[in-house]
Amino acid sequence: MSLSGRLAGVIPPVCTPLTPDGDVDTGSLVRLVDHLTGAGVDGLFVLGSSSEAAFLTDRQRRTVVETVAGHVGGALPVLAGAIDMTTPRVLDHARAVLAAGADAVVATAPFYTRTHPAEIDRHFRLLAERAGAPVFAYDLPASVHSKLDAALVLGLAADGVLAGVKDSSGDEATLREIVAGAPAGFAVLTGSEVLVDTALFLGADGVVPGLGNVDPHGYVRLYRYGRAGDWDQAKEEQRRLAALFAMVHVGSPARMGRGSAALGAFKTALALRGIIAHATLAEPQLPLAPEEVERIGKLLAAADLL
Amino acid sequence: MSLSGRLAGVIPPVCTPLTPDGDVDTGSLVRLVDHLTGAGVDGLFVLGSSSEAAFLTDRQRRTVVETVAGHVGGALPVLAGAIDMTTPRVLDHARAVLAAGADAVVATAPFYTRTHPAEIDRHFRLLAERAGAPVFAYDLPASVHSKLDAALVLGLAADGVLAGVKDSSGDEATLREIVAGAPAGFAVLTGSEVLVDTALFLGADGVVPGLGNVDPHGYVRLYRYGRAGDWDQAKEEQRRLAALFAMVHVGSPARMGRGSAALGAFKTALALRGIIAHATLAEPQLPLAPEEVERIGKLLAAADLL
Amino acid sequence: MSLSGRLAGVIPPVCTPLTPDGDVDTGSLVRLVDHLTGAGVDGLFVLGSSSEAAFLTDRQRRTVVETVAGHVGGALPVLAGAIDMTTPRVLDHARAVLAAGADAVVATAPFYTRTHPAEIDRHFRLLAERAGAPVFAYDLPASVHSKLDAALVLGLAADGVLAGVKDSSGDEATLREIVAGAPAGFAVLTGSEVLVDTALFLGADGVVPGLGNVDPHGYVRLYRYGRAGDWDQAKEEQRRLAALFAMVHVGSPARMGRGSAALGAFKTALALRGIIAHATLAEPQLPLAPEEVERIGKLLAAADLL
Amino acid sequence: MSLSGRLAGVIPPVCTPLTPDGDVDTGSLVRLVDHLTGAGVDGLFVLGSSSEAAFLTDRQRRTVVETVAGHVGGALPVLAGAIDMTTPRVLDHARAVLAAGADAVVATAPFYTRTHPAEIDRHFRLLAERAGAPVFAYDLPASVHSKLDAALVLGLAADGVLAGVKDSSGDEATLREIVAGAPAGFAVLTGSEVLVDTALFLGADGVVPGLGNVDPHGYVRLYRYGRAGDWDQAKEEQRRLAALFAMVHVGSPARMGRGSAALGAFKTALALRGIIAHATLAEPQLPLAPEEVERIGKLLAAADLL
Repeated sequence: MSLSGRLAGVIPPVCTPLTPDGDVDTGSLVRLVDHLTGAGVDGLFVLGSSSEAAFLTDRQRRTVVETVAGHVGGALPVLAGAIDMTTPRVLDHARAVLAAGADAVVATAPFYTRTHPAEIDRHFRLLAERAGAPVFAYDLPASVHSKLDAALVLGLAADGVLAGVKDSSGDEATLREIVAGAPAGFAVLTGSEVLVDTALFLGADGVVPGLGNVDPHGYVRLYRYGRAGDWDQAKEEQRRLAALFAMVHVGSPARMGRGSAALGAFKTALALRGIIAHATLAEPQLPLAPEEVERIGKLLAAADLL
Repeated sequence: MSLSGRLAGVIPPVCTPLTPDGDVDTGSLVRLVDHLTGAGVDGLFVLGSSSEAAFLTDRQRRTVVETVAGHVGGALPVLAGAIDMTTPRVLDHARAVLAAGADAVVATAPFYTRTHPAEIDRHFRLLAERAGAPVFAYDLPASVHSKLDAALVLGLAADGVLAGVKDSSGDEATLREIVAGAPAGFAVLTGSEVLVDTALFLGADGVVPGLGNVDPHGYVRLYRYGRAGDWDQAKEEQRRLAALFAMVHVGSPARMGRGSAALGAFKTALALRGIIAHATLAEPQLPLAPEEVERIGKLLAAADLL
Repeated sequence: MSLSGRLAGVIPPVCTPLTPDGDVDTGSLVRLVDHLTGAGVDGLFVLGSSSEAAFLTDRQRRTVVETVAGHVGGALPVLAGAIDMTTPRVLDHARAVLAAGADAVVATAPFYTRTHPAEIDRHFRLLAERAGAPVFAYDLPASVHSKLDAALVLGLAADGVLAGVKDSSGDEATLREIVAGAPAGFAVLTGSEVLVDTALFLGADGVVPGLGNVDPHGYVRLYRYGRAGDWDQAKEEQRRLAALFAMVHVGSPARMGRGSAALGAFKTALALRGIIAHATLAEPQLPLAPEEVERIGKLLAAADLL
Repeated sequence: MSLSGRLAGVIPPVCTPLTPDGDVDTGSLVRLVDHLTGAGVDGLFVLGSSSEAAFLTDRQRRTVVETVAGHVGGALPVLAGAIDMTTPRVLDHARAVLAAGADAVVATAPFYTRTHPAEIDRHFRLLAERAGAPVFAYDLPASVHSKLDAALVLGLAADGVLAGVKDSSGDEATLREIVAGAPAGFAVLTGSEVLVDTALFLGADGVVPGLGNVDPHGYVRLYRYGRAGDWDQAKEEQRRLAALFAMVHVGSPARMGRGSAALGAFKTALALRGIIAHATLAEPQLPLAPEEVERIGKLLAAADLL
């Protein structure tokens, strides 16, 4: 499916189920995709942070895109992350995901290197020029250690370089500025699980919530309430999802990274719900303890998801 | 050449010369290697920060290792960076560089992801177990956004996981702790161009200076003075090299990243000295301006290197 | 006026007009207070960041509180900042502002020192126990370099230690958590000029906008729309105020700090509107350039404020 | 005593003993001063970080300076911190400490506010112009959240604004640059307990070690070895002091801030050695646990200090 018109709606960042040995569990992945599309989502984003893209080998990344794009067969758009440090490496990933069936590419600013706004600008212009497909900017300061400011994003949007932005910064002041200044056709997507109602209120076009793997129906309802301007219902649905999102804090910060805690929670919930076979995380992440798994079960039960 | 015994001495992180089109300029790379070995260096480190590893595609990385390892033919050890975000991806690079002829692997802690000391520990243990070659830890907080603390490094050293550490943190208090606690055979290498005399004074085994591309003879002299305990001569040589290192501040911070400024300076100096053909930087880095190139020429002249 | 019941509404952080010599310009301060109360604000916050509290001497701080509290004479509540590094110093300021007529005290977590959540908790408990007046926590990570997390704030709120929180972090996810968990009577105030509509939507009780010095009528309207659930009007008023807020970016980042640029903009706007006599900033802040003053005039004109 | 000529040697940052009620314990303070001067130190620095200046009220700060300056009676120079957020507040402290008997003032760059190098430069120029006594810059990025770069310090030194710098940044590359460029009479002092040998090797004039409260004789020996160019002995003495410095890591990071752990260790060691009466820390810092006190006793015993 080609991306014609502005991307909008609920586009979950699809988790990557793994076997106990760390291989991509394609059977579980297909079931997860069915779970999402069955809930009425509007697109799929593979190879983002919630997909553990940073942990997947190039071969595994290709398997993920081929499996998902092959399974949906153009029924809805598939965006794919091209997560790497700099332009030449990102371009190699962009070509690979497009060859494997993705409809658009999602890329961050350069990281690991000590960069500059002029170089970030050049990075996205080179990507757009050479990728041959729509490019979305991924704003994720917790990983990239720089923030895409509104002026930079709007300049790239005005010149047709970017098709949209996925904002996982939590900075709604900048989100408002981008919504206000973006040209028609530019998609503003929020990646914050617990600020979807406010992002829609501010004019965002779509949402990319990691927690949407676990409860896609909730996010589809939330999006529809927001689109309809039914803010009281939107806030109530968001309140329920925010309570469920507490699962990312279950894994002990004394024992594991916040990434392991969040992805471990999502995968555990998916396994408890019977959607994927194993909650295995990629190396070197650490698994949740049995009592932590139990607490996640209780959160699911409280949300009527078990 | 296999790495038997502790690595020591001057091991420059070899720049990667590029053609104006951005391909690896293997002719220039071989001339650069001859320039370094001719000065009497003790080893070579390819695919580190000074090599623009973050910018090189997998194909280019392989070309670099094959070219350098093939050219030196075992005459001195070749270490290669396996710079990527997490264990599975680093392992793929480790296998690739070893297959291409490297003698040992250099890897950072996980980055881009939100990690934890227990996961960093696990990361290095998995690498050492599976790489099948000596592993050096690369401590580069400016890129990785976490610091390897002394307790973690010493625990891994005591268990034989790590063959050494390349410390580019500038934190000499931790360097001292590591030197004091490290077992025999563990190599402590500093990556700080302007703190080589003090690092040797503190007991470091070797130095990995980016500026060593430009003036390897200077670092070989500095290392020998330090090894001989001739601290006055060491300090004087270091003073001279510190003045030369000012070249990394020539590129305007208003216009380019600090990475572009530093690598642009080294490559410009190598081109001005006639060792490599072009000062081209990988995308999306920005080139020095003509007047900045001129200032680098003056610094070289002042150091009797033109 | 004692603070009975929960604080709510528009409580501007009152700028501190200075004479060209750097003394407190009490005449201008009284005019500014009249300008704010005339617009219908619900309270006043003196000695916060917008008041340049970090720059005022103890004598000047006392003058500010005496002037403002004396002038309003109990007609509306006056909160005062007790901005200093640690508990004993904050307590001295708390006693001073209460003696000078303030109704409540606003304090940050310890800063400058390397602290810990357990110490921050203890800090607020000691303040509340010893100050003898309501204490509000001031969450300002840009200055304090730590963030008050929801669990800490909610624990202090549940124990009756804090009367409320002024959240200038821009982190609306945490704001939502605090609103959801706070006991009756606990006031949640946002300090973000451009996220007032969303904060009210999330359930915040009041707003403390620096830009409210310049356009208090706008924030009073915005608050009333939000309280009435008239979100379309609220968003439109917020959009207008967000455009006006662009004044804080007029001062050149190449030449001055972001504090100088923001406070210089507010004071310049107040001087251009004829409310205060001089736009003087405290030392060592730097003044706006004439062409920057002109641009602020244009922003005021565009907002119909000249 | 006026400060004529360049400050040099060992200048400990004097701890502030407190009674269990939190008052300044002047009897213990005098005994501590005698302990330091008896060991042959060259000056005293009061109201710095090791003095808990951030926690002392204005009245307590005055008591400290009057007690120390009164007791030494001009026998050696007394420097005093004027630790506060901005120029006007720092100037008030500067006047107070000079009136109380200090010979020179030590001040940081502005903190808490969002500042700029041009404002930091202006800050020190205003201080020097108005304080009427020598001003030393205090470089403490862990507290101030900005680093004084070499160009700024050298510019102020060249213009006679600063009498010296106390560098507690741990950044020896910058220290080297400052030593290389400083005019005669400008004092470069390091505040790093475990890098004194290397700082002296690099040409620093003096040392301001917090651990010098506990073992001033060790630092006096270390300084003399360094001054004599006896680097082997210097390194051995530094090695012994670095092992003793491990006391700052005894307090559990899970339970208290790093400030509490470090200052608690120094004061506990002083109490165990019988020099001060109580190890009390100012609020809201937390005390060491009994088993932690025991471990500090063992470190003292291992260093032959009990």
